[in-house]
Amino acid sequence: MPIRILVTGGTFDKQYDEIHARLVFRESQVAEMLRLGRCRVDVHLRTIMMIDSLDMTDADRQAIVQNCRQCEETRIVITHGTDTMVETAAALAAADGVEGKTVVLTGAMIPYAFGSSDGMFNLGSALSFVQVLPPGVYVAMNGRYFRWDEVRKNRETGVFEAVG
Amino acid sequence: MPIRILVTGGTFDKQYDEIHARLVFRESQVAEMLRLGRCRVDVHLRTIMMIDSLDMTDADRQAIVQNCRQCEETRIVITHGTDTMVETAAALAAADGVEGKTVVLTGAMIPYAFGSSDGMFNLGSALSFVQVLPPGVYVAMNGRYFRWDEVRKNRETGVFEAVG
Amino acid sequence: MPIRILVTGGTFDKQYDEIHARLVFRESQVAEMLRLGRCRVDVHLRTIMMIDSLDMTDADRQAIVQNCRQCEETRIVITHGTDTMVETAAALAAADGVEGKTVVLTGAMIPYAFGSSDGMFNLGSALSFVQVLPPGVYVAMNGRYFRWDEVRKNRETGVFEAVG
Amino acid sequence: MPIRILVTGGTFDKQYDEIHARLVFRESQVAEMLRLGRCRVDVHLRTIMMIDSLDMTDADRQAIVQNCRQCEETRIVITHGTDTMVETAAALAAADGVEGKTVVLTGAMIPYAFGSSDGMFNLGSALSFVQVLPPGVYVAMNGRYFRWDEVRKNRETGVFEAVG
Repeated sequence: MPIRILVTGGTFDKQYDEIHARLVFRESQVAEMLRLGRCRVDVHLRTIMMIDSLDMTDADRQAIVQNCRQCEETRIVITHGTDTMVETAAALAAADGVEGKTVVLTGAMIPYAFGSSDGMFNLGSALSFVQVLPPGVYVAMNGRYFRWDEVRKNRETGVFEAVG
Repeated sequence: MPIRILVTGGTFDKQYDEIHARLVFRESQVAEMLRLGRCRVDVHLRTIMMIDSLDMTDADRQAIVQNCRQCEETRIVITHGTDTMVETAAALAAADGVEGKTVVLTGAMIPYAFGSSDGMFNLGSALSFVQVLPPGVYVAMNGRYFRWDEVRKNRETGVFEAVG
Repeated sequence: MPIRILVTGGTFDKQYDEIHARLVFRESQVAEMLRLGRCRVDVHLRTIMMIDSLDMTDADRQAIVQNCRQCEETRIVITHGTDTMVETAAALAAADGVEGKTVVLTGAMIPYAFGSSDGMFNLGSALSFVQVLPPGVYVAMNGRYFRWDEVRKNRETGVFEAVG
Repeated sequence: MPIRILVTGGTFDKQYDEIHARLVFRESQVAEMLRLGRCRVDVHLRTIMMIDSLDMTDADRQAIVQNCRQCEETRIVITHGTDTMVETAAALAAADGVEGKTVVLTGAMIPYAFGSSDGMFNLGSALSFVQVLPPGVYVAMNGRYFRWDEVRKNRETGVFEAVG
């Protein structure tokens, strides 16, 4: 049962550009994180885009939907910025052709490139939930999972919490 | 649905003693790891022992069984050295009074105190599997989960693999 | 022979604000870095300001000069953003009342809060140079030291190099 | 003015062997540390041995002496285990053919492979002291330097301190 991992960027994958003293995107670090986690799950990794989720357009979301629809795998993890993760989850839940799949979105509050990241914890969590949850679209953050329509990010605390 | 975490030591929790230049056990670092992972799962953490799993006796295993039997929680994560993790899983599966619970054992190949640890990944993974798997005793390593009687540690590669 | 350390901010001391997803200044981390380095030099640490060196005004530079002039110590390390480190060095060299002292400015290309920082290396270097160099104003970066009027930062490479 | 760096092992360069769950020597990490420190000093790096300094024999010490005597450089940094660093310093001070050179020994209390190492700090320190101290044999630890005959390691605290 191979798992598709779709990389879209987000804090998860930000790196530090020492010449310009700012956070930037370069190559995704997800493959390195899987190696570090000694992950032996059969994964197919694909980087679709490398952007801040605040910059994500409807066209970007449709590209994500399209990737989920067309891939052979029925279990999919998406790394994503936390700010609009729930919007992308809603777009996936509304799309035709994804309903039979288990899709888990995850991200990080701290870039992996910082030693003290929650990224490794969240990646381990999302990859585990995706193997056992029934079809549907979910967000996995803070060690928990939520159905796409039962979660929001609390912007004051940075924590994902149940709604409704 | 609170989750019980039982700490028993293992590589996961080894630290470096700079005066004697060797790896030792001190206080468990699992609480700090959960903080770093921004974990918001309701967990009850208890350190039962802090030992190498190669030094674990039958009496130690009975103490673990006893803790799983008596705790109120029905979902339990156990951090454990990797070398005899499967033996402890078998002891739990054979015990009376644990059969209605979901128990997930996990560990690490590299101490968390080293920056490049698989511990954060495995902790995120085990905490996720325990929330969704049906009652039974499991090992969660390398991003995967295994029933207690379908897994062994490959000592040459350090990888947990399915047995037939 | 106590050494004065004056903290002014710079990349050296930037931290990651996970709520607003940006680099910020909080408390200086220099004391923690000295602890980590097992430093046993007798140092008197003082934070004067916590700013980007690109935002440093003439008044800020005068505050630094004033601190160097008035402190009892004759050996001083200043942590500073790299972009205008050389300007501050020139201001110190031009000031009355500092000429009898050994002043070493240092900084970092990567924030200490990132695991892969050059900050620890540079702090060890600056603290060492300041103990043995004769009176004067110096920049210590990239493992080297330069007199204040013989150095510039190459903005393409991020490296400090000799001029003149 | 190129600087010779001689690598002999010690805690500095210990790594974690995850298959056998113990600390071991592999390739030296000093070159990587210099890269991380953005070091631009002209250094010639040579690994002579990779051993615990408690295992160092008289023949090993003679090999170190021989390297210091024969190399063209007059400024030399030696990475070394802390336990017998002072003995090796004494052997160097007693040797013919080294007296015109500046030799600085350094090490670490925590392996560099652990995120929280004093190694980067000490390497920056030793490389700086070696550039400015007059000929002689020195130990650079804890941000300080000591003449070879004025220092000992306090084995209870792990700190190098002045004697005599």
